[in-house]
Amino acid sequence: MDHPKAVLFDAYGTLFDVYSVGLLAEQLFPGQGQALSVLWRDKQIEYTRLVTTSSEGAHYQPFWELTRASLRYACKRLGLALTAEHEQHLMNEYRHLSAFPENREVLQVLRTRGIPTGILSNGDPQMLGVAVRSAGLEGLLDHVISVDTVRKYKTHPEAYRLGVQALKRPASQILFVSCNAWDALGATWFGYRTLWVNRYRLPFEELGTQPTRTGSTLDDVLSFFE
Amino acid sequence: MDHPKAVLFDAYGTLFDVYSVGLLAEQLFPGQGQALSVLWRDKQIEYTRLVTTSSEGAHYQPFWELTRASLRYACKRLGLALTAEHEQHLMNEYRHLSAFPENREVLQVLRTRGIPTGILSNGDPQMLGVAVRSAGLEGLLDHVISVDTVRKYKTHPEAYRLGVQALKRPASQILFVSCNAWDALGATWFGYRTLWVNRYRLPFEELGTQPTRTGSTLDDVLSFFE
Repeated sequence: MDHPKAVLFDAYGTLFDVYSVGLLAEQLFPGQGQALSVLWRDKQIEYTRLVTTSSEGAHYQPFWELTRASLRYACKRLGLALTAEHEQHLMNEYRHLSAFPENREVLQVLRTRGIPTGILSNGDPQMLGVAVRSAGLEGLLDHVISVDTVRKYKTHPEAYRLGVQALKRPASQILFVSCNAWDALGATWFGYRTLWVNRYRLPFEELGTQPTRTGSTLDDVLSFFE
Repeated sequence: MDHPKAVLFDAYGTLFDVYSVGLLAEQLFPGQGQALSVLWRDKQIEYTRLVTTSSEGAHYQPFWELTRASLRYACKRLGLALTAEHEQHLMNEYRHLSAFPENREVLQVLRTRGIPTGILSNGDPQMLGVAVRSAGLEGLLDHVISVDTVRKYKTHPEAYRLGVQALKRPASQILFVSCNAWDALGATWFGYRTLWVNRYRLPFEELGTQPTRTGSTLDDVLSFFE
C-alpha cells in the first residue's frame, strides 16, 4: 500500500498528556489527584457526546466550557470542595498540558520528508493555539483544525470531514493518529487510515472494527513511511 | 401547572436494576463483581453513543449486541478471562434483571388514575419483552417503545420523538422518568417534563439544564399528580 500523503493527529491524549493535570490535582486534593484527573477526562468526553448527539448543534458548548463543566462535576462526584481559586488553577493547568516527549521529533521527521501534518481536535481554537505554543510545537504543524467550526464533536462524521477538506485529499490517503481508542475507531469508520497509539495498554473497542495499525508511542507513525 | 397527561419510563437503570448482575459477576469473578458491573454498564452506554454519533444509523447495533460487546470489553480491561459459558451466564442474567421494588405499585396507581404509561428504552424489542415479563410488569404498561425503530440511541432527538408519536401528545404534556442523569437531561432538552430519580445520590450533569424535578425513588412520580 502507498505511504499516506498526510498525517492528522488528535490533540488531547495524543499530543498532549491530559493526565498531566493529576500532579496539581494531587497537590490540591491529596490522595484524590488520580481519581480526579481520570473522572474529569471521562466526563469531558461524555459531555462532548451528549451535546453532539442531542441536537444538530443546538446544545453545543466549546470544549473549554465542557472542560470546566466536567471538572465541576468530577469534584462534586468525588466530594471535593472546588473553590473558585482551585478551579482557575486547574483550568489554567489544563491550558498548558505537557506534551508527550517523542512528539517533536516525530513531527520534525515528517516535516523533513515533506509530509503535510495537522491537528484535528475537539479543542476550541483558542485552547489549541495556547496548547500548541506552550508545548513548543509551533511551526511543526501545517493545519490546526478545530471541530468548533461545525459545532459537533468527534466521532461525528462532520468533525472528521474537516480534515479531508483542509488537506484536500481523500480520507484513504490520510493517516489519522490517536491515542483514544474511540477516536481511532471513529476515524476508521469515517475512512481514514488509522494508527491507534495504545499508550496505556488498554483493549481496543469491541465493536467489530479495528484500526489499520496499533502502536505504543507516537514513533510508530514513522512505520507507515518505511 | 396541569398534571402530566401521560408518563414514560426509561427501562435500564430506572425500572430494571442494571447492577443486579453484580451478584453473579461476583460469584464468577470473586472480588471483581462490582467493578465489572459498573464498567460493563458504563461501556454499554458509551457504545450506544459511539454508534449513534458516528453515522446516521450505519454503525447501529442492537442493544443486546452492544451489551455483549461491552461485557467483553469490560472483562478484557479488568483482566478477567471470560469463557463462553461465563458470557452466556452473564448475558442471561442481564436478560432477567431485577426490578426496583416500588415499580409495580407506582404503575398500578397510575393505571387506577387512567394515566397512559409506557417505556421508552434503548433496549431492543426482544430484550424489553423478556425484561417486562420477567419483572412482572406485563399489563401495567400501555406502550413499550424501543429506539430500535430509528436505529439511534437516546439522547438523539429521534429516539425521544418516538414517545411523542406513540402517545400522540406534545412532549410538554408528558412526564419522562429516568434514573440516568444523562437521560433526564436529554429528555429535558427535547421538551419533556422530567423527573430524575437520583437513586445513588449523584450530582446532576453540569451542562446548564436541570430536570423539572429530582426525586429519590420511583414513588416520586406520584408527586406530579397531587
